[in-house]
Amino acid sequence: MGPGPGNPYPEVTEALGRPLMGHLDPAFLALMDETNERLRSVWRTGNPLTFALSGTGSAGMEAAFVNVVAPGDVVVVGVNGAFGERMCEVARRCGAEVVRVEAPWGQPLDPEQVLAAHPSPAVIAVVHAETSTGVRNDVGCLAHGKGDALLIVDCVTSLGGMPVEIDAWGVDLAYSGTQKCLGVPPGLAPFTVSDRAISRFVERPQSWYLDLSMIADYVSAGSARAYHHTAPIAMVYGLHAGLGVLLDEGLEASWARHAECGEVLQAGLARLGFEPFAAEGHRLAQLTSVVVPPEVLPAGLDEAACRRLLLDRYGIEIGGGLGPVAGKVWRIGLMGHTAQLRNVTLLLAAIEELLSQ
Amino acid sequence: MGPGPGNPYPEVTEALGRPLMGHLDPAFLALMDETNERLRSVWRTGNPLTFALSGTGSAGMEAAFVNVVAPGDVVVVGVNGAFGERMCEVARRCGAEVVRVEAPWGQPLDPEQVLAAHPSPAVIAVVHAETSTGVRNDVGCLAHGKGDALLIVDCVTSLGGMPVEIDAWGVDLAYSGTQKCLGVPPGLAPFTVSDRAISRFVERPQSWYLDLSMIADYVSAGSARAYHHTAPIAMVYGLHAGLGVLLDEGLEASWARHAECGEVLQAGLARLGFEPFAAEGHRLAQLTSVVVPPEVLPAGLDEAACRRLLLDRYGIEIGGGLGPVAGKVWRIGLMGHTAQLRNVTLLLAAIEELLSQ
Repeated sequence: MGPGPGNPYPEVTEALGRPLMGHLDPAFLALMDETNERLRSVWRTGNPLTFALSGTGSAGMEAAFVNVVAPGDVVVVGVNGAFGERMCEVARRCGAEVVRVEAPWGQPLDPEQVLAAHPSPAVIAVVHAETSTGVRNDVGCLAHGKGDALLIVDCVTSLGGMPVEIDAWGVDLAYSGTQKCLGVPPGLAPFTVSDRAISRFVERPQSWYLDLSMIADYVSAGSARAYHHTAPIAMVYGLHAGLGVLLDEGLEASWARHAECGEVLQAGLARLGFEPFAAEGHRLAQLTSVVVPPEVLPAGLDEAACRRLLLDRYGIEIGGGLGPVAGKVWRIGLMGHTAQLRNVTLLLAAIEELLSQ
Repeated sequence: MGPGPGNPYPEVTEALGRPLMGHLDPAFLALMDETNERLRSVWRTGNPLTFALSGTGSAGMEAAFVNVVAPGDVVVVGVNGAFGERMCEVARRCGAEVVRVEAPWGQPLDPEQVLAAHPSPAVIAVVHAETSTGVRNDVGCLAHGKGDALLIVDCVTSLGGMPVEIDAWGVDLAYSGTQKCLGVPPGLAPFTVSDRAISRFVERPQSWYLDLSMIADYVSAGSARAYHHTAPIAMVYGLHAGLGVLLDEGLEASWARHAECGEVLQAGLARLGFEPFAAEGHRLAQLTSVVVPPEVLPAGLDEAACRRLLLDRYGIEIGGGLGPVAGKVWRIGLMGHTAQLRNVTLLLAAIEELLSQ
């Protein structure tokens, strides 16, 4: 119940151990095609270039920027948490001129401010679900005001756990991670790219490993299947299985399950004396952040010691704060297979026991 | 039996499905430390910065270059196959001035030529075991002539299957892949870095994801354990288990097993009319390359059709040629768990059946 990884679905764990095939085996290519088709359903997109990148969500972020940002390009980045900060750093390493649009940690970005930050940016980038704060940023309203800019959206913590609408929202490049609401271990970055973004790819991006033009020649159905690098076969098995579980449940049903779990958890934490950290109306359900008032903790224990007790006594991991809120907030994930009411019940009961010791 | 992935050890398959822990869980950090310690044994190094990078072997290659190559640096690259070519491309994308030292595909590099190519290169880079040709390049003799240059060695196909001596050979940065002679699915790049290389890291490398200074703050025992990106937990479980199998067998015993399998296979293929492609004295045992004379094939079948029949009838994958030798050679891997004499027996019998049909 940390901010990710969550527990994988049992079907995923089973799939990881299936007999290994080669990355050019026709049977593996068929499974990869099916995985990409499932990803299109989950991303709500028709983008032909939709696949799982061979790295974690952070590799997804880097791939999104290096393929479309040339030195000197203006990149507007919304920053209200650690992952917006990371976007700035990744864009700077591409030689971008970064224009920051900030909101305090715990508050959402103002979309109008993001759109007004520069008259003609090459790229506008925002994090949909800020894992460091538990805040949802509005993405859908950026589409009509973005002009010629490409829209990059970090969906690491949102995909599968709340509405994500790549086509309807006019998102050009989006990446996620497998270990959050998809219920798969970490290691792959689900990725989708609009045709508009493909037409704006820089030539010979600085990363060979993340060069999407080359990768497209291997991952796309009907492509040359040209070897680029060896796909992480076992992880693709796992993702294929996890997406199967998700689509069998139904995407909307998964969103509703995550929403319900978060709501029950947040109500329970309020009863125990914790204050919500994320602004009302923009709270994530799959990642709850609360301020930990020192006075609710047992005498002599700080928040880190309490988290350690939760882990040691109950086998429950929850997350602490990052950056400016380190030592001040808890971050509790209910994602993928972990998003079950019985887990909420257990966690609240365990915290209550701890606080009353 | 393709050029990798090989079959994973059963203990690895079992480990992939173990209950997932968080990337900051003390129990996971302990397992990662132990994995890194095992890697030091396999690399034959005392390098403190030895770990598994969160990407495939190609990500390892990119990480090796981007962290030590600044724009304008002279990088000498030995090129006698596809992976030497790839090194040139990766180095160019770092802004390097690349000096190529070539040998024909199938022939080894001349180490003296590599050392004489430039009076003061920043980096010298060679592939130890060329997966595209089945050729071993001599690495050990580069150490004393390299001067101030850093030595980067690609050990993707060599590590675990033949002698690799990072410290004795004076190698500064080396990377491998999990899916070859380590008997683990693809997805991680075992990596090791000398202190000398660390002192030459460029500031703010162009890749954030592969920034070794930041990664070191998480993976190193005794470090701040600062979160950089979410480690691919399940894959680390698998690597930990695979290295355990390898070290239980003994590194020298594993080298000998790979050597014996390759020898028996190469003798058998010669009897069936195939000619070795790699130069004598520099043939890899774990990756056998042979020229496929069209006259040995059954009438009406080309080499690709024969490989497809091997896959469909016997469930055996072998590899075709890359680049200039596409359609002309076969590449047969006997790596990790696949390196067993019974597999050699099966493959030779299957090929014999096919050719006599």
